Amino acid sequence: MHPSLLQNISQPRDLKRLSSAQIQQLCGEIRQFLLDSVSKTGGHLASNLGAVELTVALHRVFETPRDSFVFDVGHQCYTHKLLTGRYQRFGTLRKLDGLSGFPNPNESAHDAFIAGHGNTALSVAIGIAWAKKLKGEPGHVVAIIGDGAFTGGMVYEGMNNIGKLDNLLVILNDNKMSISHNVGALAGYLGHLRTTNGYFTAKENVNSFLNGVPVIGAPIKSALQNSKKAIRRAMYHSTMFEDMGFHYFGLIDGHDEPELERIFQTVCAQPGPTLLHVVTKKGKGYAPAESNPGNYHGVSKFDPTGIPDPEVAPAESFSSAFGRTLSAAGNTDKTLCAITAAMKYGTGLQFFSHAHPERFFDVGMAEQHAVTFAAGLASKGMLPVVCIYSTFLQRSYDQIIHDVNLLHENVVFAVDRAGFVPEDGETHQGIYDPAFLSQTGMPIYSPSNYEELRHWLPILLSHEMQGPRAIRYPRGGESKALAKYGCSGKEYDKLVSAPGAKTALVSYADEVEDVLAAAEMLAKEGIPCDVYKLVRIFPFEEELIHDLSSYPVVLMAEECVACGGIGEHLARALQDAGWQGRYIHRAVKELCLPHATVPQIKQATGLDAAHLAEAVREADPKGEKTL
Amino acid sequence: MHPSLLQNISQPRDLKRLSSAQIQQLCGEIRQFLLDSVSKTGGHLASNLGAVELTVALHRVFETPRDSFVFDVGHQCYTHKLLTGRYQRFGTLRKLDGLSGFPNPNESAHDAFIAGHGNTALSVAIGIAWAKKLKGEPGHVVAIIGDGAFTGGMVYEGMNNIGKLDNLLVILNDNKMSISHNVGALAGYLGHLRTTNGYFTAKENVNSFLNGVPVIGAPIKSALQNSKKAIRRAMYHSTMFEDMGFHYFGLIDGHDEPELERIFQTVCAQPGPTLLHVVTKKGKGYAPAESNPGNYHGVSKFDPTGIPDPEVAPAESFSSAFGRTLSAAGNTDKTLCAITAAMKYGTGLQFFSHAHPERFFDVGMAEQHAVTFAAGLASKGMLPVVCIYSTFLQRSYDQIIHDVNLLHENVVFAVDRAGFVPEDGETHQGIYDPAFLSQTGMPIYSPSNYEELRHWLPILLSHEMQGPRAIRYPRGGESKALAKYGCSGKEYDKLVSAPGAKTALVSYADEVEDVLAAAEMLAKEGIPCDVYKLVRIFPFEEELIHDLSSYPVVLMAEECVACGGIGEHLARALQDAGWQGRYIHRAVKELCLPHATVPQIKQATGLDAAHLAEAVREADPKGEKTL
Repeated sequence: MHPSLLQNISQPRDLKRLSSAQIQQLCGEIRQFLLDSVSKTGGHLASNLGAVELTVALHRVFETPRDSFVFDVGHQCYTHKLLTGRYQRFGTLRKLDGLSGFPNPNESAHDAFIAGHGNTALSVAIGIAWAKKLKGEPGHVVAIIGDGAFTGGMVYEGMNNIGKLDNLLVILNDNKMSISHNVGALAGYLGHLRTTNGYFTAKENVNSFLNGVPVIGAPIKSALQNSKKAIRRAMYHSTMFEDMGFHYFGLIDGHDEPELERIFQTVCAQPGPTLLHVVTKKGKGYAPAESNPGNYHGVSKFDPTGIPDPEVAPAESFSSAFGRTLSAAGNTDKTLCAITAAMKYGTGLQFFSHAHPERFFDVGMAEQHAVTFAAGLASKGMLPVVCIYSTFLQRSYDQIIHDVNLLHENVVFAVDRAGFVPEDGETHQGIYDPAFLSQTGMPIYSPSNYEELRHWLPILLSHEMQGPRAIRYPRGGESKALAKYGCSGKEYDKLVSAPGAKTALVSYADEVEDVLAAAEMLAKEGIPCDVYKLVRIFPFEEELIHDLSSYPVVLMAEECVACGGIGEHLARALQDAGWQGRYIHRAVKELCLPHATVPQIKQATGLDAAHLAEAVREADPKGEKTL
Repeated sequence: MHPSLLQNISQPRDLKRLSSAQIQQLCGEIRQFLLDSVSKTGGHLASNLGAVELTVALHRVFETPRDSFVFDVGHQCYTHKLLTGRYQRFGTLRKLDGLSGFPNPNESAHDAFIAGHGNTALSVAIGIAWAKKLKGEPGHVVAIIGDGAFTGGMVYEGMNNIGKLDNLLVILNDNKMSISHNVGALAGYLGHLRTTNGYFTAKENVNSFLNGVPVIGAPIKSALQNSKKAIRRAMYHSTMFEDMGFHYFGLIDGHDEPELERIFQTVCAQPGPTLLHVVTKKGKGYAPAESNPGNYHGVSKFDPTGIPDPEVAPAESFSSAFGRTLSAAGNTDKTLCAITAAMKYGTGLQFFSHAHPERFFDVGMAEQHAVTFAAGLASKGMLPVVCIYSTFLQRSYDQIIHDVNLLHENVVFAVDRAGFVPEDGETHQGIYDPAFLSQTGMPIYSPSNYEELRHWLPILLSHEMQGPRAIRYPRGGESKALAKYGCSGKEYDKLVSAPGAKTALVSYADEVEDVLAAAEMLAKEGIPCDVYKLVRIFPFEEELIHDLSSYPVVLMAEECVACGGIGEHLARALQDAGWQGRYIHRAVKELCLPHATVPQIKQATGLDAAHLAEAVREADPKGEKTL
């Protein structure tokens, strides 16, 4: 059964003819629809359930694309998508050629900008607001930012640059969490604001209160007047946001749609920059998500009437295998510290944090601080392990170069979600880390299954190893095809030795599975290929270069950016060894990857078995190539 | 004549036996010594003159290395160096094998950490403070951070993570500037704090004041009490720093040494984290620097009795050639915007900012914001030019990938100080940008002289070019040897065509000069070489690959990290074209470069003419190599 109001909203202005009662009904329909739909497609549920009224009110008062909505991260943009002509296609969410799970201007003119990494919205919004002013264009720019994003430094850099932008409105959507619970001073500060609601209403009384205080007698008059002045100043600069130059309005109930509309209208009539502090409930309206929002942040398909609890009893994954191994190592090595940036559960660190709370640090969405903090710990003899998703570790590029590598500090990088990441699309791919980590010369390990991860991680955690080093592993579980190879303990393995092979296929991590499948295809066609799997992907073992030098054709395949990837380094190493065979590098050249399943992404990038086999056929069509 | 007290300070504890009067004398001696010494060696003058009393007081109260001093950026560490056994060697400052201009633990146990990029000190200090706590070690950690660094997001990420660290002391050294004048909301906020000194003394009176207010009559009693509660809360949380969890002490006169000692002692006796807001005068004690501190931030040798004014009438440089060309382009293109991150003069943007103030944006030490802000501007049809030093652009790696490149926004990157940078050492080298920018696939131009810069910049500023693009140029002036080649207007040039040449030497930017010299050396020995100079260094012209394919030997030299550098991409391109010659890549493999002159750095990295010539000789000792 289709919802009766929602299905008739084909563009935001359709909202404006609805009555208040109908808006209430619509919010209910949206919430039910999100629950039904996301339980079928998977996606980000809890944050979207929390932003229903807020988004409806925004579209009632503002007018996109004349006004620009800039979502931070974009975990809360589903209602916006539903109200901007994408209701009918919502079942294609996060599927190949379907709707993106994040805002994207290529999908709709109502999406002002792309988002996927946190803390970017304010900077983008300031750019759009300035462009509007310089071009004399009307309209507001609204940045919608979760409280979690306020733990990331970029937001402050943005706040420092809001100037007098009168067309800028920032909505702090405060649901008291980023992905899991917020950490740090800012969370405490927001909590303080939330618990002092009376404070803000009281504020209005202060002036009259002060005016009513009698000033008696000359000697104390001036002291009192100074105090009054001080109080007035303190009350005026009463929040950090006012200190930064915002007009601050808070707290606002983010589920009271009529009140939100009223406030937006008031704000529109006043010059900005304005910050609205809106309090919402993550998971609002769906009891299991309300009581356990972390579990419903990003979900796979689920039964909305059941009680899924993915994080309490997760299936084994690279993350959990990592987390358990690290936690065990922490029992004997008291210098071991684990650091993450708002990804405690995602990186499997819940095990370590339970066992060693005093050495566990969740620094918020602050990847830069995470790495430099680790460098500081390492400089005093601790062994910090920085656990961050590959795509977010990009934020720490400079800190890795400057704070960790120059002093050769003992920091272990545990790079989760390395390689292709399904469904989230172009913003979340872990395809740069081998390129940028290898620039520093640090050893990088990329296990293909749990056994290898469990073998190599303790070796990287040994104090005999000096300087920075990295271990990286895919999102999700191990491939069954790769699990069966176990762990040889060697830094590379020759998985297939085919008699008469003139071609070596080389890869690492998950991509080895496709390479094995390609070898199988080619074998059937009478083109025998050997297959090499790297665990230490950089720097190379001398023996590996020696081994590969004997093949007329070498194909290297990796889920990594082509330019600067491991395959380029391998080509140079072979060249330097005097090898003159035919080298084929298959990696990511078109960086804007689709939101799709991993096999679909592999097909799109030419990294599936069929494309790899075809590349070998083309290189040596008659099997005649020699050295 | 040696100063009488300073020369007898061989370690910080020598300070402790001096009387107050002697300390005053010592500060005077240090200031005079800095002026004399830096006028001979060059270095950072104004910020160091401002930090004399502060540093002396720190060493009188604390005890390094038991206590750790972490300097942010390190522009103010000279007095610290003088007091920690480095007085005798101070004349070697910033020279090869001499003292570094920045703190470095490899130079002295009194230097807790390296610094060169801004905003890192707090994160490092938190790391060291936690390590001390976890290991049960005594002592304080003092982070000394300029107000300029408070415009960078990492400082906030750090503040959000100070927790209850009772051994952490942060000194906000507020001299009202970073390199040039500070910008943004935070500068305004600090100014507000500075101008309300009475406010903080008044604060102490507030409680008694409130207690004295009579509460008359039941009906208004509760309202008044609420207001009083609100006021108390507001006064308690009266600064942003207190909001973040610090004990805040301010304002403190940073040139009153006895007062600083007294406060440090008080702070030592109380549990932290504490923030001391110290006000100092950049250039203190040297009138020309006091009145024009920007000109004396980083200086070359100068006559301390004369009136040098390097920024008002600078010699022509790549930066000024860039700045003038950009400013002229801004006359006709009203969409053109210029953005920098606290490097207005350094990047030559003073011309643009004077001519087009409404389209000039200095965002503070906030490279991340700079790039994402540019993406926002570009998304609305403006053409932003982001002007940042190569080494600091590393901070924006993720923003370039995620906010600019995924949507293919029209952002021009103007990368100043690209390649080797003299004297500042390992933290300031511009050796990563070709590697990380090329990953995105954007075109990168690297002119070798002003004429090329003036020719290519307007082409990059054309709206016909789509998507991100970069232009990069060295620090300082053009090489005379390269100036004489002028500009051909082609994307690469064959500068030398030697009859019978079997070797092609390829390079770009300043390094071309060394390659030309190598070719000359080799020619004299009867080894003729052709020389190619790239302006567009990536992606390559097809014709270039075709041309190079005819040589048995190709040597590629660049002031860039070897792993992922342009030379690797060129090798792959040649390989893909079926070329099977001998490829030599000379680039930066040891990333920890010395502080030295550029010719010395080239020698150390094998990028000088002699080493390049030797590499060619080795590759083809008898000139017999063929394809």
